[in-house]
This record gives sequence, structure tokens and C-alpha cells, in this order.
Amino acid sequence: MITLAVDCMGGDHGPGITLPACRNFLDNHPQAQLLLVGRAEDLASFSHARAKHVHAADVITMDDPLEVAMRKKKDSSMRVAIEQVKSGAAQAAVSAGNTGALMAIARYLLKTLDAIDRPAIATQMPNAKGGAVTVLDLGANVDCTAEHLLQFAVMGSAFVEVLSGDPQPTVGLLNIGEEAIKGSDEIKRAGELLRQAGQSGLLNFRGNVEGNDIFKGTTDIVVCDGFVGNVALKATEGVASMIGGFLKEEYSRNIFTKLAAAISYPVLKALKKRVDHRGYNGAALLGLRGLVFKSHGSADAFGFERALSKAYDAAHHHLLEQLKQHVETAAPLLAAAQGERLSATS
Amino acid sequence: MITLAVDCMGGDHGPGITLPACRNFLDNHPQAQLLLVGRAEDLASFSHARAKHVHAADVITMDDPLEVAMRKKKDSSMRVAIEQVKSGAAQAAVSAGNTGALMAIARYLLKTLDAIDRPAIATQMPNAKGGAVTVLDLGANVDCTAEHLLQFAVMGSAFVEVLSGDPQPTVGLLNIGEEAIKGSDEIKRAGELLRQAGQSGLLNFRGNVEGNDIFKGTTDIVVCDGFVGNVALKATEGVASMIGGFLKEEYSRNIFTKLAAAISYPVLKALKKRVDHRGYNGAALLGLRGLVFKSHGSADAFGFERALSKAYDAAHHHLLEQLKQHVETAAPLLAAAQGERLSATS
Repeated sequence: MITLAVDCMGGDHGPGITLPACRNFLDNHPQAQLLLVGRAEDLASFSHARAKHVHAADVITMDDPLEVAMRKKKDSSMRVAIEQVKSGAAQAAVSAGNTGALMAIARYLLKTLDAIDRPAIATQMPNAKGGAVTVLDLGANVDCTAEHLLQFAVMGSAFVEVLSGDPQPTVGLLNIGEEAIKGSDEIKRAGELLRQAGQSGLLNFRGNVEGNDIFKGTTDIVVCDGFVGNVALKATEGVASMIGGFLKEEYSRNIFTKLAAAISYPVLKALKKRVDHRGYNGAALLGLRGLVFKSHGSADAFGFERALSKAYDAAHHHLLEQLKQHVETAAPLLAAAQGERLSATS
Repeated sequence: MITLAVDCMGGDHGPGITLPACRNFLDNHPQAQLLLVGRAEDLASFSHARAKHVHAADVITMDDPLEVAMRKKKDSSMRVAIEQVKSGAAQAAVSAGNTGALMAIARYLLKTLDAIDRPAIATQMPNAKGGAVTVLDLGANVDCTAEHLLQFAVMGSAFVEVLSGDPQPTVGLLNIGEEAIKGSDEIKRAGELLRQAGQSGLLNFRGNVEGNDIFKGTTDIVVCDGFVGNVALKATEGVASMIGGFLKEEYSRNIFTKLAAAISYPVLKALKKRVDHRGYNGAALLGLRGLVFKSHGSADAFGFERALSKAYDAAHHHLLEQLKQHVETAAPLLAAAQGERLSATS
């Protein structure tokens, strides 16, 4: 039995979305049970043999400043959900709430793994080869050192290895192409550290990749700082939605194009399914002493259910234990990288 | 009459692509003349009443290190093309060669405008509103200070004003969304500088924008550092090409989907045209004392012709003079920003 703690109040829609998603998830996962965290009155309508209600009086809104989320709302559904992971009552927590608050509370309550300075947000996206690419960090850290990027690469590799079964997933460092202007000093140093890690057999490092490589399927994992990762992810969502809009416009132009759309229905439906970002909803907060998954704030019930399924798969495959083991194996190398930095700046 | 200097040897394909593009361009622009720069023997086959050949013995390859491009190949087609702009023989130069070399040579020969520290690469992309968004920088500068981003905003505004005729184009600062993790200190300071410039009436600043806003059409101009801009641009090219590939796959699945594709032909052709990145080929190097345009290295004749047309339009609309005037108007504000930085660090 796998138990997930669900922040039922988080996200743009709260229980109106999270509860239907929980019901579908339970129906599709007979080995799962849920701890539904939120205000008792908002969750009262829901009952299921494998769901237990956990009352939490406060709700963290999408606009709450960090201080409010951390210090004022100590009985928030988000915090209580993470406490279930800390106490061992649940193997993973899932929330669609405010990313900044989720990261801060998770880090405060669960702490980071030894040898990991900062947790990273990792998610999977489709690639042109029909597979998936895992990108991290997606916004938890705006300024990353080379050592942080190395830590992300180690955690990303463990994540993909556990979830896909591939024992040697490939890692690329996100960079820009032109020789003369290639990367900042920090990125160059990250490249060196990753190469060393590759030579020592710790990672399957394939060198620099560019923005277009993310979706080409050049590597299984793409490592970058959170600012770049966040912009790249959102820019691609923007362009995908623009193309979808153009396609709709062109197909609704006149009676002939509308007929063509009707005939193309199965094709367009299949395409939509392949690029539907809801299917990829659910990002992992990696590097903590507990599993926490983040759903898009605007996710619908289908999307939120996907995030629940991802958390379930991670717990089912013992992601936390595997991650710990990988990080332990990498610890001497991670410490050496930190040491070099200290001796270079002292 | 507008005269452009064309580096006919640059890009992945050289004269095989650049010469046919020049012929089409001349046919479509009766008021244009071209200086075709390259090895005499490679250009010999081309003759046109409004084209003159300028011999240059060297060719800078896509892989040439900067030292080779700058110091060894002093008679390169790229350099000679830019010299035509410097001497006043041409109003703009166009090259599909190595971006790093082009930027370095252009900067060395032409110098930057007063009050501009670094040139930026700017390009226009389609947006969901059917208009265009101008993004800069796209890779000339990997580490940008707040002052650089302010300079980019001033130049981007002048660029869009001149080319689109809109006297108050809107400017957004590319950032990430979550409150708690929003932007680095440099980005926050850039936001302050841009707000001040907005209040003084120098810019139409609309605040922070996120990756998805680029294609939504939230602002006419998006300002960012070159690393982020380059990754975002290439990631969106990657996702667009992936979606195109999926669409092709789904339409070729069986006899019925192939029939649907045949019936949808006009729709798919119209869609292709709207998202065809070739139509947007041609990036401006802004901030120099002369106009230089960069074509994608892999551009075909249609794409390279678009880059020529963009350079023509810029020269035709006196972009350089307008840019100088905008930067002069902004000079006190740009200097004040630099001054604040100096007094803060002294």
C-alpha cells in the first residue's frame, strides 16, 4: 500500500479540482490510499474507503508572501500535507499551491539530503523521439553555481534511472552555441565538473546541449539553472499554445476548412494528446529527505490526477531511497568540487 | 537607392544559397543595389545590373576560433562586407556566418554608439495576436548587468518604433513568476531602472513578463540576457519542429489519415507559412555605428532573402540615425544608472 498526502486546498481551483482527481486516482490505483488534507467543511462531501481526512484550518493562497505562508499560516493544508511525509504517515505529498511556499516549507520541514545544498524542481516533457526528457531546475534556484548544477545532474540521473529503468541515462548541460560567446564562467566550470563526474563513471555526461536539443531527445536529462529552465519551459508552452491557436484559426476559416477539420478529427485528437501538457503535469522537488510533488496551479482534474500518479510511481519505485544512495555514492565528488571552490576563493 | 554589402561566403551553404537569394532580392527590390563580397572565382557566375563584386580572399568558417577570424583572416568576406558599411559604400551588411566572429569584427570595425556598452542581437518572432514580438539579446552577451538590460530596452524600442511605426511600443522584462524566487538581484535592479525610464517617458515599460508571454503578445519587446534569450529562442524552435513532426506522423498513419491530409492541404500550408521560422530570418546587431544583420547559418535562399529584406527595410527607414537619436535622448538616464552602480560599489 502506498499512501499519499494531498493538499486538497492548493492551486487555482482547490477542492473543486483536487477531490474529483483524487476519486479517479483511487479508482485507477487499487494499492493506493490518500490522506486528504484541508478544511474539514470543504472536504466533507468526499468519502472513499481508502481516503482519510486530515483537518488543516489555513489555506495558503497563490499570492501569499513567503513570510505569511511560513510564519502566519502554520496550520495550512500545504504544511500539514508535508508533515505527513515527515512523520512517515505518507510516502509522498502532492500540492498544486504556490511553488515558492511549497519549496520553502518542504525545505524547512524535511531538510535537504547530505551533500545537497539546494533542492531542484524536475519535470518530464515529451521529445521528438517519442520519449521523454527530464529538465531541472525549473525555477527553485535563480542563481546556480557549477556545484549546484553538478548536484542537479546527480539527482536527475537517479530520478530517470528509477522511473525509466535505464541504468545510464544521458545528461546534457544547457548552454548556447557560438564558440566565442559560449557560456558564463560558471557554466564552463559546470562543464568541467560534469566531465570529471562522467570520467569517474558517476554520470553519463554528453556535453553541452542547446535549447532545441531539449525536444530533439539529444539527452535524457538537461541540467540548467532555475531561471533559464523556467523561461525555456514557459516559452515552449507559449509557442505550443500559439501553434494550437493558429491551427484552430486556419481550420475554422470557411466551410471547406471546417469540413477538412471534421475529417481530420482523429488526427487532431491524437496530436492534441501527444502535446497535451496536462499529461506531463507533476514536477518533483528533488534533494529533500522526503518526496514532494508539485502540480501546475491551473491544472484541471485530469492534470492533477497525473501529478498524483507521478508521486505514486516515485514512491512505488522507492525514489527517495535510490536518490539517497546515488547522492551518497557521489558525495566524495560533490565534496571535492566544493573544496576546489573554497581553495580557489581563499 | 539602398546599397547592401553581402557576405556571400558565410553560412553553412555559402554562394550556393546566398547568390540565388541575392537574385530574388534584386528582382523584388528595384531600388536596391548589392555589393557581393567573396572570392572572385566563387561569384563569377553571377551578374546583375545592380550588383557589383568585391573580392575577398579569405572565408571565415563556422568553426573558426575568434582569434583566427579576427587576426589571421583579415581579408575575409565577412570583414570586407562590414568595411563597406564603415567606409559608407553600403548602408548595411548581411552575413550568415559565425555569430561570434560577426559580432566581434563588427564591434572592432564599427565601434559601439556612445552610451552603449555592448551591442545586442535582436530578432522578431510571430505572436499569437498575429503580430510580432522583438526579443533581445539573443546570445551576444551571456552575463548582463541591469544597465545593459536598460540599454537593450532603449535600443529595442527604437528598433520597433522605426520598423513598425508604433511610437510607443511596450517593453517587458523577462523574469520568472513565483514571488519568493522571482529573479536575481541583477534582474530586480533592471526592473527598477526600467520603471524609472518608464516614469520619465523614455520607454513604455509594462513590468515583468514570463516565458509564455513572449508568444502571447503581452508586449512588443522582451528584454533578457543573451543566454536566456538564446535558450528560449532555440527551445521554441525545437518544440515547434517537434509538433510539426508529430503532425506529419499522425497524418501519415494510414490511408484515412492520408486522405484527411490531402483534404487539409490548404490549411496545413497556411499553418506552415505562419510558423515558418524562415520568414522571420534576419537578426539585427543593435548598438553599433553601422547596420549589420545576421542570417541563420542554415538559412535556405528564401530565408537569406528575408534577411536581406530586413536589412533593406532598416536602411530604408534610417534605423541607424533613429537609433542614435534615441540613445542620445536616453544618454542622461543611462549615465545616471551607471553612476548609481559606481557609487554603490565604491
